[in-house]
Amino acid sequence: MKTRAIDAIHSKLLDRIEILGAVSAEEDRLTRLSLSREMETASLLIKSWMSSAGLVATIDPLQNVIGSWPNAHATKPALHLGSHYDTVVNAGKYDGVLGLLLNIAAIEILQIEGYTPQRHINAIGFCDEEGARFQTTFLGSSHLCGDLDPSVLEKRDAQGITVRDAMQARDLDPEKLSAITPLIKANDLYLEAHIEQGPALEALDLPLGIVTGIAAQSRIQVSVSGKTGHAGTVPPDLRRDALAAAAEMILEIEKLPVDAPEARATVGQLHLQPNVSNAIPSQVDFTIDLRHPKFDTLKKLRDALRTQLRVIAAKRQLNLQIEYLQESTEARCDRKAKALIARSVSKIQKRAPELLSGAGHDALKIAQTCPIGMLFIRCQDGLSHHPEEHVSPEDIRDALEAWIETIKTIDSEW
Amino acid sequence: MKTRAIDAIHSKLLDRIEILGAVSAEEDRLTRLSLSREMETASLLIKSWMSSAGLVATIDPLQNVIGSWPNAHATKPALHLGSHYDTVVNAGKYDGVLGLLLNIAAIEILQIEGYTPQRHINAIGFCDEEGARFQTTFLGSSHLCGDLDPSVLEKRDAQGITVRDAMQARDLDPEKLSAITPLIKANDLYLEAHIEQGPALEALDLPLGIVTGIAAQSRIQVSVSGKTGHAGTVPPDLRRDALAAAAEMILEIEKLPVDAPEARATVGQLHLQPNVSNAIPSQVDFTIDLRHPKFDTLKKLRDALRTQLRVIAAKRQLNLQIEYLQESTEARCDRKAKALIARSVSKIQKRAPELLSGAGHDALKIAQTCPIGMLFIRCQDGLSHHPEEHVSPEDIRDALEAWIETIKTIDSEW
Repeated sequence: MKTRAIDAIHSKLLDRIEILGAVSAEEDRLTRLSLSREMETASLLIKSWMSSAGLVATIDPLQNVIGSWPNAHATKPALHLGSHYDTVVNAGKYDGVLGLLLNIAAIEILQIEGYTPQRHINAIGFCDEEGARFQTTFLGSSHLCGDLDPSVLEKRDAQGITVRDAMQARDLDPEKLSAITPLIKANDLYLEAHIEQGPALEALDLPLGIVTGIAAQSRIQVSVSGKTGHAGTVPPDLRRDALAAAAEMILEIEKLPVDAPEARATVGQLHLQPNVSNAIPSQVDFTIDLRHPKFDTLKKLRDALRTQLRVIAAKRQLNLQIEYLQESTEARCDRKAKALIARSVSKIQKRAPELLSGAGHDALKIAQTCPIGMLFIRCQDGLSHHPEEHVSPEDIRDALEAWIETIKTIDSEW
Repeated sequence: MKTRAIDAIHSKLLDRIEILGAVSAEEDRLTRLSLSREMETASLLIKSWMSSAGLVATIDPLQNVIGSWPNAHATKPALHLGSHYDTVVNAGKYDGVLGLLLNIAAIEILQIEGYTPQRHINAIGFCDEEGARFQTTFLGSSHLCGDLDPSVLEKRDAQGITVRDAMQARDLDPEKLSAITPLIKANDLYLEAHIEQGPALEALDLPLGIVTGIAAQSRIQVSVSGKTGHAGTVPPDLRRDALAAAAEMILEIEKLPVDAPEARATVGQLHLQPNVSNAIPSQVDFTIDLRHPKFDTLKKLRDALRTQLRVIAAKRQLNLQIEYLQESTEARCDRKAKALIARSVSKIQKRAPELLSGAGHDALKIAQTCPIGMLFIRCQDGLSHHPEEHVSPEDIRDALEAWIETIKTIDSEW
């Protein structure tokens, strides 16, 4: 009986991944950016699925979808089960969505089983974790923690549309944001299941892993400016080639993990001017994505890197500007929650390996408000933020069983 | 009397540089691409100035402007004085245009003086030397040499408009191209004056230089493809970062002149995918502009470079594609023409330095048909293909006097 119920709901979960994978701004690929029409469509679908699972579902003014399992006799702090449903441009179907649908599926099974929780439980679909539209991460979770910076409403997307304008275009009222009492409070517990987005579980040949914490992050903007000139005429000693300098910097950045093996350093975005084949590049702008398990170490690494880049620029007589766009300290998962998730996972697979999350998640933001716990699910080739992102149905089935067990264990023991 | 005539025409020449500098597709910068409305406007201005100078002026179906000084009693091969009037995007005012206006001004003065040439003289404004619109260089000079490849009519600009469509949009008849007898013939002489586009004359503190030849060129397209992945999660040993590989390649390319001091190597254009800050770049496409005085050496250099790039790609387990987009052999200036230009220049300045042209010119194409000679004029900071490109009025005055002298000397002695 129980197995058959899980079978049916697992199958429904797989269908819903495909359905949300098709709710996109683009014909042939998945792009679902915050406060778009596609997010509205997706939010209505998620709301209806939460209702079918027995939750009281609402959509807030930022397009967070909240499914509430109220408990008039709650004796323990609330449990929030969250994940996001916005995507990057040309995304995979599982990033964010899998965790969200897993929460709904697990609750639906608990309701079918007649499970009575000891606390208030919420399933939350966050509206803006990727921040691909407004370069704002954690808009939804910040709001539900009650610390959304109002200035974020004036941030603009690539078309110059502000968050405020985008809300109004979807009939969402920016004025209502400040009127709402924060859903997530200091003594609550937040749990999130997410695809790993890396290759560690695949290397271990295990579907599930216990997250120990989320790495500290720094996003840095570098501008190198030299002087253009005709490619055929300017001799080497008179060149002030911004791209050659950037190339030297990129190789230094790549070498960062040699001395700091836990660091991850990536130059992902780069633009040059004038960008024509017969002209020496006069300016190159690029980003550095820098991560490390500890923010203190990260700060030392980025300061050392800044010095190295300055040396390269000075040697080549170029101007250099370095701007720290965004920085976040690391988050640690709650020790007890981690142990309880591990115990639940151990019932499904032989061992429960611990992993650090290099990627950011809403949990990173929420860790500033309350304890957090996270489960990672293996994804094929460690590939994410890519149309070929894939999680096997078997792994999703394992995750669903482990997640149901986790919710029950946490509810009774945390 | 003579000095006053030169003063007036020099002043008119300076005005015309400003006038043509304002005939642009863009409000705030100079962009005049082949077969555009701006080229039509410029061609009509040039035609009218040629007529004022006493020439019989026509515009051909590619927007070449030809000013003819016919000579029924010609005893010697024709002399062609040419330069182009198309520009790159965001161009300077002097590249191409200065040589063209110098030709018209010199002829106007010769006509005022009552000079009678011993041969037919043509002033030519070429329509497509930069090739910035259709990636076709020397469209105009190829046509006037009688070897325009008809397939070039099907080449497309960035908007997908073919050369043929662009001609028809300007009421120019593509069918007429094949009907015209080539203007430039094997025994003629072609002379071109041009800004240096490099810093050598400035370093020598001299306004004018004698061109010995034009360097061989190779334009190479390189595509490096690896694998994208999340910037926060993929460990160094599993990364297939196309940008880090490209950076290593760019530094190898930069080093090329260490062993081959006469070589010029430039990576001017680069695009990456997906080009977002938190994703490892999966693909980088870039150009190499490679030049050397000798095509044989150039070919050896580019083959050696190809091997080096392959080693880098193989070491990093990346795919590499290398395509030779365009190659041209070097051109040598006619020995006698060079000596006669040098003699004329020596009357203006203390010495007549010899320079190799790293940049390509219509003369490079025309050298395949008839002997050529070139004069270089100093430009400030060696800067070209840039809005701050500048030539001093004094240097233009020197160039004008030297050019009048050159035409007379060549006419009588070549």
